[in-house]
Formats: sequence, structure tokens, C-alpha cells
Amino acid sequence: MRNEKRRFFAAILIIGDEILSGRTQDANTCFLAKWLNERGIQLKEVRIIPDQLRTIINNVNILRKKYDYVFTTGGIGPTHDDITALAISKVFKKRYEYNKEALKILETHYKNSYLNDARKKMAKMPRGAGLIYNPSSSAPGFYLKNVFVLPGVPVILQSMMHSIEQLIKGGQKVFSETVTGKMPESKIGEQFGKLQKKFKDLSLGSYPFFQAGKIGVALVIRGYSKKRILQCKKVLQNLVKKIEKS
Amino acid sequence: MRNEKRRFFAAILIIGDEILSGRTQDANTCFLAKWLNERGIQLKEVRIIPDQLRTIINNVNILRKKYDYVFTTGGIGPTHDDITALAISKVFKKRYEYNKEALKILETHYKNSYLNDARKKMAKMPRGAGLIYNPSSSAPGFYLKNVFVLPGVPVILQSMMHSIEQLIKGGQKVFSETVTGKMPESKIGEQFGKLQKKFKDLSLGSYPFFQAGKIGVALVIRGYSKKRILQCKKVLQNLVKKIEKS
Repeated sequence: MRNEKRRFFAAILIIGDEILSGRTQDANTCFLAKWLNERGIQLKEVRIIPDQLRTIINNVNILRKKYDYVFTTGGIGPTHDDITALAISKVFKKRYEYNKEALKILETHYKNSYLNDARKKMAKMPRGAGLIYNPSSSAPGFYLKNVFVLPGVPVILQSMMHSIEQLIKGGQKVFSETVTGKMPESKIGEQFGKLQKKFKDLSLGSYPFFQAGKIGVALVIRGYSKKRILQCKKVLQNLVKKIEKS
Repeated sequence: MRNEKRRFFAAILIIGDEILSGRTQDANTCFLAKWLNERGIQLKEVRIIPDQLRTIINNVNILRKKYDYVFTTGGIGPTHDDITALAISKVFKKRYEYNKEALKILETHYKNSYLNDARKKMAKMPRGAGLIYNPSSSAPGFYLKNVFVLPGVPVILQSMMHSIEQLIKGGQKVFSETVTGKMPESKIGEQFGKLQKKFKDLSLGSYPFFQAGKIGVALVIRGYSKKRILQCKKVLQNLVKKIEKS
């Protein structure tokens, strides 16, 4: 479902002490950013915060009002430090209770006898939440209004995105083209800035890289119009060739 | 310089459209988190925001009041989209001007004749800023009060941390120990929660993993007292053994 005339914006809230301690490298931002962009939703902000109830509530409240969609990752497992579902209940002032459908899914998966309290906890969520199905480890995520609650483990999160597909509306897509220059970015900086002034409807970014001892720069053109991006790319390619020869 | 009695907290502000578009995977959070922790500074929040002047200013203002230290990454290169230094000048209401020492460093590095306006831009910063030396590509970062302005390219950022070492004060260090269990986390969830209640001065986190088709869980104990952590670890190890056998 894409509305070509409207622009949609999203934020990600990463909940997890393990990211803030440096123990784990976040991999969800990069995946979600691309996934959203392909659907015409621009990621505008990411926040990484600790597993603290008040902090989660405050941040969800700020982000859900500011953006069309908020995606949270982490904190929906079976242990005591998993408090995202409780926090979301408090955000929307809904009862934090067992979701019958979620409980049934877990019962089937764990075959009743193994469904201890820790596992049952994964079926607890705000009243009125809709489920996000989890084909890889069964415990579902959920959504309420514009907030989508996902797990932190990347492989599980990724397996669940299919179920979100039909729940969100996308808008105008952002396209991009990259021109690579064999030069330090400072050599093209001035003229690249002038090009940005000529193409005010596009967004031009410059990203230096160092690979195998070689210095280079990736010049990225982003925007809503493919045609304009290609016009700009042609000018930029000629500019890069000229500077590389000089 | 470490003050063992005080706790220090920090935030990272990652400035860069390239992270939000999914083009680049952030690698600085993980590195800085560990670096800070080794010095007795706890990372409490990370925000990733676009290259927009107003957004940068607002976020720096919120974070610098909330935490002992703020580290920004990205946006200090030679191109038009590098606006972090200008933003920091506005945050502190200082003139945005050429820093003489920075200019001298760049002149030596680029040998005068090649010092075009784009390169000179890298010496522009708020009046009164102190330099953070850059042994790998010469263009320095800077700091003003509790805000440290670093580049986005990980190898360059990492080479500059040595110069920050003497500028910051650290406090009480957070220690951690990990116990790995060959089980799904839901199998130990309840008893792990009970353990947390017994060791209220520590912070217990549970992180499931899936490696080579095997399911396991990393149980992490964090806290300020090494002795207490080891007490807790012993109890946890026995618990894990018991559950693995059952």
C-alpha cells in the first residue's frame, strides 16, 4: 500500500543494555533502514536506550508523536529484564495482560507441559495489541497504533518483517545514486558544494573511505525524483573525471 | 584520572544521513562504549540523527545537560554537508571561525599550495575550542566544555582517542561476568529473575543466541562490585549446570 504523494517518516528505538555496554553490535538499524526505504518510509532518528521502564516510556512517547511509525527492538523475551511490553502498556494506558492468541501460539510451540511462567510472559502485552507473527521462534511481537514491537535478535526480527508488510502504508520513495571518486574528498569539496546549490531539490552527501591503503570518496545523490538524480549524476561524473585527470 | 567515588555517564550523538539510509553500518558505538567503560564512564544513550543544523543543535543541547560527556561523530569533513562544527558554535553561542593551530596543522599536511577552501573549512570551529589531534589524516576534532567532536570514519576516530584520554575524568568502573547456558533463555528465565531479586545491587541481563544451529543464552552480570559479581556468578553457574542436566 503506497501513497505516492505523501512522505512517511519513522524512528527506531533500540532497547538494550547489551548494545550500550559494547557487548553486542547493533545490526537492526541497517536492516530496518533499508527495509523501510524500499517501502517509501524514511528513517529519521534512532535512539539506543537502557532496559529502564521510565526511559522506555518517555522515549516511546516522544517518538510516536513525532513520526508516522516507531519500531522498537529488544526486551520482549522471557526474562525479568524484558520490560518493553509492560512499558508500551503504560504508554497507551492499557492493561498489561495475556493475549489469548499469543498464549495459544506458545502452547502449541512448547506443547503445554513446558509452558512455564517465563515462557508465558512472552504472551503478555497491552490489551488491544495486534500480533506480529514470528515464524522462527514462535513468540510473537505486537503493534499498537503506530508502535511496532520487535525482538532484538536480528535473525528473528528479520523473519517477522513479512507480517508487518501489510500493516504499514508507505509513501514516496527516496532514490539514490553513487559516484565514486579516486581522490580525497577535500579535492572535490568545493565543487561538490556548488553542485548541491544547483540541485537544491536533491540531497548530496560525501563519504570518504580508505580501502586497502587507497583513499577514495563515495558521492551520494538522494532525492524523490529519479530523473533529477540522473541529471545530477551526469554532471557529477564529468566533474569527477576532470578532477581525477588533474 | 579516575574518581572512584563518582559515577560518570555519557551519550553519543551520531550525525549522518548515511547511517539512517542504511548505506553505512555504524561501528563507532560499539568501540566508544567499550573505551568509555574501561575508563569508568557508562554509556547511557545513543542517538542517530540526520545532517540537519537545527536537529544537531537541539540534540546536543539536550544531551550535554543530561550527561557528563557527549561525543559526536560525523560531519566534520571538507564538504558542504559537514555542519557539525557550525552547529556546536551555535549551541555554545561562540563565533564559528578559523582555529589558528588547526589551520597550521592543515598547512603543514597539505603543503600550502593545496590548501583549498574545502580543506581550510576543516579548521573552522567555535572560538575557544580545544583541539583533538588526528594522527591518521591530520584534520583535528575539537572539544568545548563537555562536548567532544569526532569524525565519522572509524579508523580515524579510533586513532584520535589517545588525545582525549587526558581530557576526561572517569569514575567507578562497571565490571561484568558472563555465564553461558546451553538452553533456550525461557528455560532459566524464572530462576534468573529470582536471582536478580537476591542481588539487587547488580544488573542481570539475558541474551539468547543462535550459533551454527544451536540455541544458547549468555547470562551477563554487571555491577560496580567485583566481589558481589563473583558471588552471584557462582550461584548462577550452579543453577545453569542443574538446568542443563535436567
